[in-house]
Amino acid sequence: MLAEFDLIQRYFTRAADTTHGVALGVGDDATLLTPTPGQQLVVSVDTSVVDVHFPADAPARAIGHRALAVALSDLAAMGASARWTLMALTLNEVGGHADADDALIEAWLHDYAEGFHALCARHGAALVGGDVTRGALTIGVTVMGEVPSNDALTRAGARPGDILAVTGALGGGAGGLALWQRGERDLAHPLLKRYLLPEPRLAAGRALRGLASAALDISDGLLADLAHLLKASQVGAALELDALPLAEGLEQALGEEAARTAALSGGDDYELLVALPPTQWSTACQRLSAQGMTLTAIGRCTNTLGLTGVPAGVRTGWQHFHREAP
Amino acid sequence: MLAEFDLIQRYFTRAADTTHGVALGVGDDATLLTPTPGQQLVVSVDTSVVDVHFPADAPARAIGHRALAVALSDLAAMGASARWTLMALTLNEVGGHADADDALIEAWLHDYAEGFHALCARHGAALVGGDVTRGALTIGVTVMGEVPSNDALTRAGARPGDILAVTGALGGGAGGLALWQRGERDLAHPLLKRYLLPEPRLAAGRALRGLASAALDISDGLLADLAHLLKASQVGAALELDALPLAEGLEQALGEEAARTAALSGGDDYELLVALPPTQWSTACQRLSAQGMTLTAIGRCTNTLGLTGVPAGVRTGWQHFHREAP
Repeated sequence: MLAEFDLIQRYFTRAADTTHGVALGVGDDATLLTPTPGQQLVVSVDTSVVDVHFPADAPARAIGHRALAVALSDLAAMGASARWTLMALTLNEVGGHADADDALIEAWLHDYAEGFHALCARHGAALVGGDVTRGALTIGVTVMGEVPSNDALTRAGARPGDILAVTGALGGGAGGLALWQRGERDLAHPLLKRYLLPEPRLAAGRALRGLASAALDISDGLLADLAHLLKASQVGAALELDALPLAEGLEQALGEEAARTAALSGGDDYELLVALPPTQWSTACQRLSAQGMTLTAIGRCTNTLGLTGVPAGVRTGWQHFHREAP
Repeated sequence: MLAEFDLIQRYFTRAADTTHGVALGVGDDATLLTPTPGQQLVVSVDTSVVDVHFPADAPARAIGHRALAVALSDLAAMGASARWTLMALTLNEVGGHADADDALIEAWLHDYAEGFHALCARHGAALVGGDVTRGALTIGVTVMGEVPSNDALTRAGARPGDILAVTGALGGGAGGLALWQRGERDLAHPLLKRYLLPEPRLAAGRALRGLASAALDISDGLLADLAHLLKASQVGAALELDALPLAEGLEQALGEEAARTAALSGGDDYELLVALPPTQWSTACQRLSAQGMTLTAIGRCTNTLGLTGVPAGVRTGWQHFHREAP
């Protein structure tokens, strides 16, 4: 009953998949896609592992949403439009139930697929390939987007004097995880929503094309990801800690100091960090404001390498594979 | 020391990755690729899970090779050339050692990467995206190839009277697994080689473009995969059991009856199953012969739906997700 082929057909094949430049959809050995002339492909892969990247008992819909969102966030950071995605789902038990029966797994898959497809639809992406296998719950998502040739935003290109800015607010990922671990389960809570249902900033990334000199998405924490940008661009940075936009409810939930640490090092925020020449600042703010998105200046790029404005001893971010982690 | 970023840099980034239409390689949020005008993209994803798809104590080099080979096999079945691949590797322990230390994991990764890259190089593919996470050993491989527009081989298109044929030989995957389970560890044994180091038939798939009316790769067993082709093409088939090309050493290892069953239902062979109009047969044989590849007729497509020539009761193939499996 739960044969692989049937699962893919039932939960992961949608009529919409035959549009979007899909010449031959799910069901053959591979999918045929028609790239858009004049565009480059933008591709990335992200894996979400149970109890490493999300709690086993998170709602299935949120797990489907989140696994895709973190992958799409990488396309957002390149200024790309999302086109296609492929998903490799490995599962054995679901919802933390080692004895999950077929009915439970099917209900889980139904909700998972709803979360995945709803986010696909909102960003005009089509699920064009899937594989369902048995094992510890692991979700590998490959995303493919397009960007006009030579227009992609990269990590390199920031120059001394550029304004460093972030979309939205920071610390929500870490704050939501802390609340989840304390037993909070209401997904309407703004912090839980930020942690379990992050929104990839694709529209913001596209709006910043031609304006930003460098961009990346904040997945490992502001400090860790800023370090990547600085290294790729060969510049330093001076941060203004008081300027950091904190996620709604974060100070109330964690207290002031832990809130600051979450915003600097917590990870899982999936906001964009960008460098902008001062001449582009007002245009960038206007374009994002038109989307209902905020852009907050948090510092400047400097000639001197290294980072100023951050107290020594603040953790420098999250690395999934550290022995002492997760 | 085993930070994710370093791992990807050390083992999965090669200088060659900056060629092959790669405009921006590993190291930014996503990779930028330049598709070839006039070609369609051919994409597929396959997951390999420890103890489901390969033994935990298989050599790391073989695991890297095999995970990529089974994915490339899908491109072969479409007649595509391999261009790009993305790999999501989740691992915690390696080689069946729950207490693997960093040195053991690094040695394992080194060998794994060698197996993966060597097969990439042989087929002109570039690894353009990777993600390394912590969890039960699981490997998700996305492959991207190209094929001239409208030239791809699909499962639909076989007509009554077409010859059904397979590349190479069958049953080697199941025979190799049986030997492995008996304790055989010499990768030079032809059956173990077929099981752990399968060769995706990319050159054969391309050579059959314009000749074959339908094609797929045999991953779940001849009977199960033939059923997919028959359904997609809306034809039946008459098989000639005596014509099945058996893998080298298969009858000696398993006996005559089990060898036949392995060839029909064993799975993991990654040969191509194709339908060919009789007028194309000699050309097809010549082209494959020039590659040193055999093509064996094993039956015909029929007007009457269903399958004849196979004794009742023969298992109809392997499904990874069956409760009673693996």
